[in-house]
Amino acid sequence: MARRIKLTLEYDGSAFKGWQVQSGTPAGEDTAASARTVQGEVERALRAVTGLPIRIAGASRTDAGAHALGQVASFLLPDEAQIPTAHLCLALNSKLSRDVAARHAQEAPLDFHAQRDAVGKVYSYSMISGPCRPALWRATHWHVRFGLRIEPMRRAAAALIGIHDFTSFASKLSLTQADRASDGKSALETVREIRHLELHEDPDYPGRIVMRIEGSGFLYQMVRTIAGSLVDVGRGFRGPEWMAQALAARDRRKAGPTAPAHGLCLEKVIYVDRRGTAHSNGKQSP
Amino acid sequence: MARRIKLTLEYDGSAFKGWQVQSGTPAGEDTAASARTVQGEVERALRAVTGLPIRIAGASRTDAGAHALGQVASFLLPDEAQIPTAHLCLALNSKLSRDVAARHAQEAPLDFHAQRDAVGKVYSYSMISGPCRPALWRATHWHVRFGLRIEPMRRAAAALIGIHDFTSFASKLSLTQADRASDGKSALETVREIRHLELHEDPDYPGRIVMRIEGSGFLYQMVRTIAGSLVDVGRGFRGPEWMAQALAARDRRKAGPTAPAHGLCLEKVIYVDRRGTAHSNGKQSP
Repeated sequence: MARRIKLTLEYDGSAFKGWQVQSGTPAGEDTAASARTVQGEVERALRAVTGLPIRIAGASRTDAGAHALGQVASFLLPDEAQIPTAHLCLALNSKLSRDVAARHAQEAPLDFHAQRDAVGKVYSYSMISGPCRPALWRATHWHVRFGLRIEPMRRAAAALIGIHDFTSFASKLSLTQADRASDGKSALETVREIRHLELHEDPDYPGRIVMRIEGSGFLYQMVRTIAGSLVDVGRGFRGPEWMAQALAARDRRKAGPTAPAHGLCLEKVIYVDRRGTAHSNGKQSP
Repeated sequence: MARRIKLTLEYDGSAFKGWQVQSGTPAGEDTAASARTVQGEVERALRAVTGLPIRIAGASRTDAGAHALGQVASFLLPDEAQIPTAHLCLALNSKLSRDVAARHAQEAPLDFHAQRDAVGKVYSYSMISGPCRPALWRATHWHVRFGLRIEPMRRAAAALIGIHDFTSFASKLSLTQADRASDGKSALETVREIRHLELHEDPDYPGRIVMRIEGSGFLYQMVRTIAGSLVDVGRGFRGPEWMAQALAARDRRKAGPTAPAHGLCLEKVIYVDRRGTAHSNGKQSP
């Protein structure tokens, strides 16, 4: 019988043009390095393992350069694929390039869909502030050349918690193409809930700040625009009270800059199991 | 007047043959990529900035592939070098390759020596256990294919705390060459103090364990051998009580394997300022 697979993926986004394959690309086909996507790489490995062209759906269409520790993809594994679910991760990892890894595979209800069924996502955004650039962390942290004061950033962040219209923090693209086309939602659907937003200062590495944000979902480039806006507050270019004004304006031009993609990491995706308990990837449903 | 500089360095060790230049290499010379060392890279940048051949001393001779967030180097900047100390980091970073960065530079007493004056070092050793390999963290974590139980590892680790003869955990090299030659110490000087040894399980990433160890100093490959021995306990190949026996044996063959270098990171080096207060790099002496 066909199986629906829920696959947890980790990747280093540095050498990818983002998650999503270009429309029109058949599942499992090789693509040019210039068009290399995570979805395409996983579909290529799936084809190498099963011999079948299999299209996968990702919970989040991460940007070029953004990373993931807990991306979730779903797909239907047809009858012809003989491989036991328990062997899938190791088989895929033997075919995937080193910058992508399957971390967990489990069977899900046949109608499970990684994007549609997600009830929450957790992202981190990591930065290093001060004049001296990082080296070990250069691929995963934004180097902000200014000193940052974290307390004003925390006060500004508090204004974003809750259910709001986040138009000010959404790239125009999300309102015109991506959201409408893929989600089947109205272009006006710009309301999201931010449940947690924490800023952590690393006591062992001067200038390192990691933002962790959990929400019901995020508009295109919303996490990066929040990070960029918080940096404007941290460096003193804006006061903490400005964040509430930027939010209320519902105008992208009123918020701060979009922080670069390489500081962003999709940490986990949250689902509700069929008995109503929220759970994230990596944990089996009972 | 000549200045003694204390320089804090961060590096990604992936593409280096370790810290130390081969003996006989003049300071500031270009070397073949196959002999690329962190010390050589920093001396090359110093020469590009000052025009002078300057030999630097590192607190720790890290292995090929090992990383550092807080390595410390010291050197004498002669009168001819006009650059203000406050400009040194940015000037060096503009000449250093992207996998090395100067993070902090300050003036120190003229007789300061990064290795000789160190009173402690903190290393981390990071690993990911379980059948599925990592991707984003592949350059900084050892992938241990077994499941690991952390409680037995913690019990075993406790046996190492304190002042002991760590011969069982030292590569032979340290007893015959490196230590004697560079430290001017006897080949029998294998006593060190481990002050802290913690094992942290990442609640957000199943299977990720980070060891953090602080000691007065470490013999060659000692941290990696402790990590490899703890993994032998965590996977159940040895009982926790075995660690005390391995330590007491004073025989390298009685301890576990040497864990790979790429999981190791020199986090910080600790010094005592001239008024007797211990401090680490990144913090100015008062």
